[in-house]
Amino acid sequence: MNFSSKLLEGAVNEFSSLPGIGQKTALRLVLHLLNQDNADVEKFTFALLNLKNNIQFCKQCHNLADQAVCEICLSNKRDRTLVCVVEDTRDVMAIENTNQYHGLYHVLGGLISPMDGVGPQDLAIQSLIERIKLGEITEIIFAISATMEGDTTIFYLHKKLKEFNIKISTIARGIAFGGEIEYADELTLGRSITTRVPYENFLVR
Amino acid sequence: MNFSSKLLEGAVNEFSSLPGIGQKTALRLVLHLLNQDNADVEKFTFALLNLKNNIQFCKQCHNLADQAVCEICLSNKRDRTLVCVVEDTRDVMAIENTNQYHGLYHVLGGLISPMDGVGPQDLAIQSLIERIKLGEITEIIFAISATMEGDTTIFYLHKKLKEFNIKISTIARGIAFGGEIEYADELTLGRSITTRVPYENFLVR
Repeated sequence: MNFSSKLLEGAVNEFSSLPGIGQKTALRLVLHLLNQDNADVEKFTFALLNLKNNIQFCKQCHNLADQAVCEICLSNKRDRTLVCVVEDTRDVMAIENTNQYHGLYHVLGGLISPMDGVGPQDLAIQSLIERIKLGEITEIIFAISATMEGDTTIFYLHKKLKEFNIKISTIARGIAFGGEIEYADELTLGRSITTRVPYENFLVR
Repeated sequence: MNFSSKLLEGAVNEFSSLPGIGQKTALRLVLHLLNQDNADVEKFTFALLNLKNNIQFCKQCHNLADQAVCEICLSNKRDRTLVCVVEDTRDVMAIENTNQYHGLYHVLGGLISPMDGVGPQDLAIQSLIERIKLGEITEIIFAISATMEGDTTIFYLHKKLKEFNIKISTIARGIAFGGEIEYADELTLGRSITTRVPYENFLVR
């Protein structure tokens, strides 16, 4: 692209370094911000710097938090015997949005992926074991993506955790609500048959 | 969305105020920036603030520039008798990318749009007339989108400029290279027949 201004080019290059943002989209976003008031642009950059400088990871569950321990871990309305193990903070948000889970979380910060050089020591696995050793937790739920990395991580975690006297479960795999059976993949459909649930459970939504 | 952190929510809200960026995309972008080094995030915000605080509009053509007069207007390799009238800086960039135009530009800063409350007085039309009065310009090319607003603007400009002894032209409308005739709309196809060009011109690419 031919930029009439180095300043414009600099800002567009920064935006196009973001994932999924190409040069044309970056230009559109930058020109949009250029049309805003100075105060709005300062608010935009302040929000970003404020986040970067002041965000913390909860000491207990490693979720993103504004203080040393996150609000979920501090809440007394939560079932402290139940811990849901997830990959990152987006998964916590997705599960919170369901309003169906009232236990605590443990954010691994990634999945085991030898291809990307991520091993168990790079994830918050030791701190999960320490939490379990405290004795309060009775069940661990793995809510981890059904990918090769996810399955590897679940396999590793299960091996590490089976020595403790706690229940270990994974979220159900099956046909999504609204999903049509004829278009489902064989693996999911097969699994949904072998892990079929009693009809009474079907009525619970 | 349930955010575990107000800081995160603040940054996501700022990003999702950008055009075409929803909450999920905003979250992805913010978490990407959160994973970068402090220096990278500061570089990102600095580029934006630097642009906002130091960008100028070229005194002559109103294009975005780093100094009082833009590089195109300053260049002595440009044909100063030819001025291409465009809506905004993106159009200048698009035309510059073709490498087919070597005249100057005039950026209107928008199009006449009564629906959006944009009248001729909001655009850089008077300054175009002043430029023409200086006597150097011999041809004006309208490179303006073929929309209702664009046509209104061309109509208005033509009425204002026809008293001057200069050539006025618009960019050609027709079937795009790679475009298939059977899928072209009637208006474009019809226009491409009435404004057909001699075969010799077809060979020029």
